[in-house]
Amino acid sequence: MVLWRQITTMDSLTLIGIGTGNPDHLTFEGARAIQEATTILIPRKGGEKSDLADLRRQIVEKVVVGDGPQIIEFDLPVRKSDGDYLENVDLWHDAIADTWIKAAGNTERAALLIWGDPSLYDSSLRIASRLKPYPKVRVVAGITTLQVLTAAHAIPVNEIGAPFVVTTGRQLRDNGWPKGADSAIFMLDGNCAFQTLNGADFDIWWGAYLGMENQIIRSGPLDLVKDEIISARAKARAAHGWIMDAYLLRRKRPE
Amino acid sequence: MVLWRQITTMDSLTLIGIGTGNPDHLTFEGARAIQEATTILIPRKGGEKSDLADLRRQIVEKVVVGDGPQIIEFDLPVRKSDGDYLENVDLWHDAIADTWIKAAGNTERAALLIWGDPSLYDSSLRIASRLKPYPKVRVVAGITTLQVLTAAHAIPVNEIGAPFVVTTGRQLRDNGWPKGADSAIFMLDGNCAFQTLNGADFDIWWGAYLGMENQIIRSGPLDLVKDEIISARAKARAAHGWIMDAYLLRRKRPE
Repeated sequence: MVLWRQITTMDSLTLIGIGTGNPDHLTFEGARAIQEATTILIPRKGGEKSDLADLRRQIVEKVVVGDGPQIIEFDLPVRKSDGDYLENVDLWHDAIADTWIKAAGNTERAALLIWGDPSLYDSSLRIASRLKPYPKVRVVAGITTLQVLTAAHAIPVNEIGAPFVVTTGRQLRDNGWPKGADSAIFMLDGNCAFQTLNGADFDIWWGAYLGMENQIIRSGPLDLVKDEIISARAKARAAHGWIMDAYLLRRKRPE
Repeated sequence: MVLWRQITTMDSLTLIGIGTGNPDHLTFEGARAIQEATTILIPRKGGEKSDLADLRRQIVEKVVVGDGPQIIEFDLPVRKSDGDYLENVDLWHDAIADTWIKAAGNTERAALLIWGDPSLYDSSLRIASRLKPYPKVRVVAGITTLQVLTAAHAIPVNEIGAPFVVTTGRQLRDNGWPKGADSAIFMLDGNCAFQTLNGADFDIWWGAYLGMENQIIRSGPLDLVKDEIISARAKARAAHGWIMDAYLLRRKRPE
């Protein structure tokens, strides 16, 4: 049952990019936006990802002096996993919008702390567009996995004046190497889709828990380091209960 | 004459992303990196872009309390404009590396404040690779034009799970629409290369001076807003003496 036809009293909703897990990724603009909110909505995903909720609390505590916004935690609804993927995502976004409205209550200025940046592989803007009446939606830019990955390796993302692609592991697995670029960043890859490529043709720069204390990075010719990445990833995932990782692949130039 | 064979005494060089012109784009990590440097090197480009040098000074003053790093300004060498483009860039980078070494003197911990993020269409990492002996190079991630453009328009950069391309105006003009994606961000475009596309096929989200006080944004179907963008851009450029802009184009879905 979709309940999003409820209406909200929010005057404004600010989506604040908080970077990738290091509280110091927050910008001064982000800090001010937190201070100016009346309510911060924090999703609980339960279990293994609860360190993300903790991180959000920690960031709020760090930047708020004296009376701060009210913090309201709420449970995220669960997405249906059988049936049509895009239809399930659509219904799920409806349900989340409804949850936001209920959690926000009579809030005037609500804010959500968004992992990375609200523009990049994040649903919050699409969910916000379901709010009625539509509040003022403001986005505060945040550091993304793209920047933290390349910073950790101290490399440029592009070759001089050349294009690059940002995409997902699923796209690599289903559609092969992206056309039209020799450099690409892959996110949201739970299955090490780089294994589907010819390892001799690419260099890889991989990182997990980027910007966090337990950051791991590996780089090198894909054929030489891919097994090590797969095994380091599996070990870290087992140890922490969750993993977030990303990688840049660059096609080798003919010698 | 290339002088980069001079050697440097720098122990470390930190490249700090400072965002796109709003001092509040700085992250807490960036602020700490400024405080920990012994010398901040600030390039002067002369004339119309001197507000960029001013912005860097302003950022340093904002975050340093008490004794701070020494600020050293230096003149950037000029790039040869006739002859082979990549060869000229290469020689120019050699010359800049030499200038850094001379400006840094006996500095132990040097830092440069990089517009946007050091990984994205920026030469500093390539210039740093010329330093001998090679110092510890550290990158601090910064907010890029990508995030500030999409934040200003409050839009996602990607469609759900879909790839996008980041590229330059020159690539669009010379090679047409990038293959393999329906969304692309174009940077470094002095000539409004979007004019080369069929306006009926795309929507555009454009912005100039993103994140700054005089930010201008326009969006809409490309055929309807392109003339307005071209004229707003020309007017703003004449008024300020310089312009930095970027845009996202998205191919319209068949209806």
